[in-house]
Amino acid sequence: RRRPGARGVSPAAPIAARVGSGVHALVRGDDNARLFDYEQRVRSAFDAIVPALKRISALQHEEDFETRAQRVARERLGFELPGWILADAWVEQLDLRRLYAWCVFETYLRFSDDFFSADPLGSAEEAEFQAFLQDCGFHILDISPCADGRLAHVIRYVLRLPYRMVRRKSYAGALFDIEDSLAKWGETELLRFREGTPNTADAPTRYLKAVVYHYSSSAPDTEGCAAHGSDAVRAAEAGCERLLAFQQAVENSYCCGASIDLLLIGLDTDTDAIRLHLPDGAGGIEPGTWVDAAQLYDETRGLPAVEAAERIDARLREAAPEAPAGMLRLLARLLENNLSQIEYVQRHHGGRYPDIGHAERFIGAGKGFEEVQLRNLTYFAYLDTVEEAAPDLDVGVKIFSRLNVGHGLPIPVVVRFDYHGQVPGARERAVAHCRRVAGALAARYPELAGRGLLHSLQLVRDIDAGGVGGRVEVLDCSVREPAQEAH
Amino acid sequence: RRRPGARGVSPAAPIAARVGSGVHALVRGDDNARLFDYEQRVRSAFDAIVPALKRISALQHEEDFETRAQRVARERLGFELPGWILADAWVEQLDLRRLYAWCVFETYLRFSDDFFSADPLGSAEEAEFQAFLQDCGFHILDISPCADGRLAHVIRYVLRLPYRMVRRKSYAGALFDIEDSLAKWGETELLRFREGTPNTADAPTRYLKAVVYHYSSSAPDTEGCAAHGSDAVRAAEAGCERLLAFQQAVENSYCCGASIDLLLIGLDTDTDAIRLHLPDGAGGIEPGTWVDAAQLYDETRGLPAVEAAERIDARLREAAPEAPAGMLRLLARLLENNLSQIEYVQRHHGGRYPDIGHAERFIGAGKGFEEVQLRNLTYFAYLDTVEEAAPDLDVGVKIFSRLNVGHGLPIPVVVRFDYHGQVPGARERAVAHCRRVAGALAARYPELAGRGLLHSLQLVRDIDAGGVGGRVEVLDCSVREPAQEAH
Ligand SMILES: [Zn+2]
Ligand SMILES: [Zn+2]
Ligand SMILES: [Zn+2]
Ligand SMILES: [Zn+2]
Repeated sequence: RRRPGARGVSPAAPIAARVGSGVHALVRGDDNARLFDYEQRVRSAFDAIVPALKRISALQHEEDFETRAQRVARERLGFELPGWILADAWVEQLDLRRLYAWCVFETYLRFSDDFFSADPLGSAEEAEFQAFLQDCGFHILDISPCADGRLAHVIRYVLRLPYRMVRRKSYAGALFDIEDSLAKWGETELLRFREGTPNTADAPTRYLKAVVYHYSSSAPDTEGCAAHGSDAVRAAEAGCERLLAFQQAVENSYCCGASIDLLLIGLDTDTDAIRLHLPDGAGGIEPGTWVDAAQLYDETRGLPAVEAAERIDARLREAAPEAPAGMLRLLARLLENNLSQIEYVQRHHGGRYPDIGHAERFIGAGKGFEEVQLRNLTYFAYLDTVEEAAPDLDVGVKIFSRLNVGHGLPIPVVVRFDYHGQVPGARERAVAHCRRVAGALAARYPELAGRGLLHSLQLVRDIDAGGVGGRVEVLDCSVREPAQEAH
Repeated sequence: RRRPGARGVSPAAPIAARVGSGVHALVRGDDNARLFDYEQRVRSAFDAIVPALKRISALQHEEDFETRAQRVARERLGFELPGWILADAWVEQLDLRRLYAWCVFETYLRFSDDFFSADPLGSAEEAEFQAFLQDCGFHILDISPCADGRLAHVIRYVLRLPYRMVRRKSYAGALFDIEDSLAKWGETELLRFREGTPNTADAPTRYLKAVVYHYSSSAPDTEGCAAHGSDAVRAAEAGCERLLAFQQAVENSYCCGASIDLLLIGLDTDTDAIRLHLPDGAGGIEPGTWVDAAQLYDETRGLPAVEAAERIDARLREAAPEAPAGMLRLLARLLENNLSQIEYVQRHHGGRYPDIGHAERFIGAGKGFEEVQLRNLTYFAYLDTVEEAAPDLDVGVKIFSRLNVGHGLPIPVVVRFDYHGQVPGARERAVAHCRRVAGALAARYPELAGRGLLHSLQLVRDIDAGGVGGRVEVLDCSVREPAQEAH
């Protein structure tokens, strides 16, 4: 797999060099093709599992079952199945639950390994974006989307940002943890003071904290954010309140004029069009007014790129006459980027996703999952302990009870803890953490676990290791060959 | 209650002005008297509970029981008992378990309120100690003792330090959390950079991390540290390893020559005499060699103060010829301070505590407990969740099963979370945290809880509020009047 990034885009490249070959002049057709290819490839790997297992199930009473099953698996899934599950099929029934969980985990591992070794979503714009961000007056962009799987692609697809240049930390309802963000604020400042990274502490840039809430334009009352009762107004207001509370926390916890800037983004999960709520002059946000990317797409379609961009700038200036120029430049870029995603959904998904509701393939529990940048693949439950995250996990289990358990299939849970390999003992602590959470998970849902309807894969990953060395490490899996007993 | 601190001790005060009126010339007799008065007062408040309840139990079938019981309580405990517990005694038996838990909680609350409003352990040396510490080359002293209740007095009594000037964070076996200390290191640096507190970042001082492990000279095989199998050598080596791992974590996580200094202290919990392990020239520690305060006490007893101090300095220089002069000055002060505590135990506890084993009065679970600076009062279980702290809690419950449950008395657990009131929503989060942990605790020990042998008091405290405003706030208690049902 080739590493993308051959096109050298300089920070000063004019708009015209970055866009083109879409219906809309500002849309990047090449990006859309590449992103769709990747999404398609990953999604079909997961989608192939059920049909392949159906076929294999139909073969289970044939005499050369194992050979034929492995052939089907190789052809349709690209990997072989564990022989010990197939081998027992002649005695009892083929254990399809276990086989299904195993296939989901294997597909996930292949997808994850590909991500960390081949960098399929890498962007040539990393350095350019960091410079642009600072130029707009910010030294970090810290985004908290809702943990809903329909927002998992918000950084790389919806906003078209280089994912390594943005902090993403998802929370149910986008209600991020203020203490966690406060700690990140401190870490960021310290790096600026000590190491001048990404710029020195005396540069007049700020920490920009963004929240992405969501709603559904097709089914607003049922397919919006579950954490806010599918009410877009409540979701926006809650995001706004949390942002202001974080701002106040920074101001109260640190002196010398410490503060942050705020950004509230709404996402229509049916079309991937965003709304940007506009900052007022006083550093606050107006949850009730916004600029809508879908509307701008329609309004500027057919215009030459430069004119379309000017129209967007003008709309933003009208809507927020008091906002700082740097903030408006950043917002304009986010809007322009989103036009590509709007067209992506139009071209590849008929303008409205067929799966407007939940259709995640597995639950991701723990910390990490940088590789999950695709829509509706993972229900995130970022957590330290099951004890604290029980409400989020219960929601995930409820979703999968409908998606999977209702059809006799188990809930696959990937338990994962990333660690800093350069800190002594960090791996051992991550391993212990992973095992403890996997145990607590089985203890919380004993009936599902007992009936083979909840399976877990335990992983850790060294985030200080780059490339292939930074792949996930498998610790354990609830689908495993029973130990051979001694005679 | 008067606030201490009238004696103005200037940073430059000669040794002779700070000591005197003990048997040993370097011992501070006035301090010993004040500390003993406080310890005695708190301890007798807790010790009065069982005899008072015995007396009240004997009265329970008398006709004017409630009046007489309240008189006994007022006289012996200094407070009245909840009428609704007494009122039911004529129907069934007096519920002494519930009454006992209620009395422990009430006594604890009175003790805690007194601490935060009257500052009984305040020190006049706070500013002087901070200046001295910086003069020795350190801008913070971060101490992790074992969480064992027999070390709870290590800061204010054993080492005679102003407790507000030292960070204390206890862990089972003194095995402190490296990620937590790393975060504290970062916070400390940021304050130096941004606010010049306690000094500016360019001052050539370092972060000093200390571990206090413990052993028992009378019963080394049974009354040492449970986390290390009562093996003093293992406890010292484990402390040393953890310190070196933290040092390496700082060096690997931050560049620009970031590092820390280390200190390993051993405590004989029978006599409160310390051992100081000496730094080698390379910034490491020798776990196998130390200077013993008990030995120095004997060796310098009878000498005039100045000569005794010189002898101590000489011993330290002999033992660690390569250690920096500032480190040796700090060690000398810790040794001199400890002489007072050695004499304190000699004079007030016969040279060896009668309770060389566990004799804690309650379990303290959560975060906070700054007011607990007394020996054998509290078994600490610093925790965020029961899930992560289960092994520590199990040890505590085992200890109290012997101390209390074996005698029919319940285990009192104070669940407490301190918060920064200046951070918006922090109180609400602390309250939710407290309730969640209290629930998880009852769920972990359902049999004890069901039989009324586990009781909890839920508290939060605003650490940003000073004085009386910084008292604990009671949220809930498992000992409470049953709700009146409507007819
Ligand atoms: Zn949501
Ligand atoms: Zn300041
Ligand atoms: Zn211990
Ligand atoms: Zn550097």
